[in-house]
Amino acid sequence: MHTIDELQKRGQMIDKIVDQLLPITRPKELYLASRHLMDVGGKRLRPAMLILAAESVNGDINKVLPAAFSIELVHTFTLIHDDIMDQDTIRRGAPAVHVKWGLPAAILAGDTLYSKAFEILGSVDADSNRIVQCLKVLANTCADICEGQWLDMTFVRSAEVSEADYMEMVEKKTAVLFAASTLIGGILSGCTEEEADALWEVGRTTGLGFQIRDDVLDLLTPKERLGKNRGSDLIEGKKTLIAIHALKKGVELEHLTRGASEEEIDAVVQKLHESGSIDYAMKKAHQLVREGKAKLEILPDSRAKELLKELAEYMVTRTY
Amino acid sequence: MHTIDELQKRGQMIDKIVDQLLPITRPKELYLASRHLMDVGGKRLRPAMLILAAESVNGDINKVLPAAFSIELVHTFTLIHDDIMDQDTIRRGAPAVHVKWGLPAAILAGDTLYSKAFEILGSVDADSNRIVQCLKVLANTCADICEGQWLDMTFVRSAEVSEADYMEMVEKKTAVLFAASTLIGGILSGCTEEEADALWEVGRTTGLGFQIRDDVLDLLTPKERLGKNRGSDLIEGKKTLIAIHALKKGVELEHLTRGASEEEIDAVVQKLHESGSIDYAMKKAHQLVREGKAKLEILPDSRAKELLKELAEYMVTRTY
Repeated sequence: MHTIDELQKRGQMIDKIVDQLLPITRPKELYLASRHLMDVGGKRLRPAMLILAAESVNGDINKVLPAAFSIELVHTFTLIHDDIMDQDTIRRGAPAVHVKWGLPAAILAGDTLYSKAFEILGSVDADSNRIVQCLKVLANTCADICEGQWLDMTFVRSAEVSEADYMEMVEKKTAVLFAASTLIGGILSGCTEEEADALWEVGRTTGLGFQIRDDVLDLLTPKERLGKNRGSDLIEGKKTLIAIHALKKGVELEHLTRGASEEEIDAVVQKLHESGSIDYAMKKAHQLVREGKAKLEILPDSRAKELLKELAEYMVTRTY
Repeated sequence: MHTIDELQKRGQMIDKIVDQLLPITRPKELYLASRHLMDVGGKRLRPAMLILAAESVNGDINKVLPAAFSIELVHTFTLIHDDIMDQDTIRRGAPAVHVKWGLPAAILAGDTLYSKAFEILGSVDADSNRIVQCLKVLANTCADICEGQWLDMTFVRSAEVSEADYMEMVEKKTAVLFAASTLIGGILSGCTEEEADALWEVGRTTGLGFQIRDDVLDLLTPKERLGKNRGSDLIEGKKTLIAIHALKKGVELEHLTRGASEEEIDAVVQKLHESGSIDYAMKKAHQLVREGKAKLEILPDSRAKELLKELAEYMVTRTY
């Protein structure tokens, strides 16, 4: 099976337990709003990585499935709240939760998913010591995500954002949730401390690569395929690695406004190609993924280990 | 010592550990926004109940202090998000977080406290089985709070809200966090299941009484003492027990708008006195507290047990 098929296979395991672990109960509209983004799509990358991490240390897939689901809930919660903060209106090709249900409902839908994530992770079938470890990893990760989102927002208003600042922001905003996924998959499967460190690192570097690739895709992928408006980072003035590189090279980036035309976006993208900024970012993403894959070498050889490597590679080569 | 002094003594234990458990670290403004409401005031009622519950089953106060702190974090998180949803601008006599830092910052400040609550509760010095139990209680409680807030918001737009609907809403929105406080205090102190049930019930009924009293105080207490605008429930069209009773009696409640004068508010309050609606609500609050206190009888006699009863009484007699 190809990487994508293996990924989908594990993603579908998550889809199958949505109704069981997050049923549409009373108040119905709250749960509809909470589930909206999960129901309209998503690649389930983080749960797939958690499951693969478990497999790579001989874990039982069925036992870690609820934990994988809880990671997807945390991811979805951050999307719902981020869309409010960034005033993004489309997500996964559908209206954002705050657009469809309004601001108060979107705040609550996110908060609900957050609670459910901890509830479900707290109920996995594992030794209590390991569950406590996982809950602390997840809580810590959520605090990091908040800090990362805060940095991302404040960087927009700052002219002095360095590559190191960007890497710190992306580590917190995106990478730690991937790292938590692989780590939790390992911990619940009884992995050793050495294996746990390796799994954290592969998750972290894959997450970093994923986000850098995401920044690139935001520039290059048509709206229909991206599931959200192209060029949103440019419009919001986000300090991506690409933008930081370009600014350092003295490239003048036009300030695009919401509703900028395809041609206007293309003109800026052309400049970013010419300055080598997009290439620069992609090289960095590939380098990170290489580092992560190397960390995996301490694990016993297995199909899951290979798939973790392939998945890491996929994160930085995917086209949407 | 009087009840209030005993309450303050335990509240101060919480104030003393704020800097240690929630330091102002980078990004500084995020943590300032997160701590704002804790720094400007608050009676620490829930932490005090958690500590008293622990004492009542011979627990070690120092061991449960971080858990008590985490409950206060959850409470503060709900205040921050609720103020956004309800468009309330003043809280504890200070500007609401979304007023002082803006909407995106307020969402994130709440999310940060939420994460920290689980992080801190996950790190208490106790047996892992009991920690997992407590984390599940807290997660479950947070989901209930979201459902309760949702019901509270949707009831505003509904003409058909019964007393049973109100009790369900208040149970979720307010009472379960009090119940979680007393229960967690007990669990972490190694209480029996029977004691756990009693502690949950006294927390729950005290919380119900507290909220009903809160609805009354919203009508009667001057802004300066209340720390927020008087009559906000009337202005927002909240379906309090008082409003439901009045509507059933056929009382016509004028629709007050933001910025309603003291005289306009007083005129409505006068009607609610005349219809017996305020008395009705207070009787219900007292009855609930009586039920809760009776549940405590299975606990061994102690000063803490007496204080839990006195605190329950205080919740429904307090004037702000």
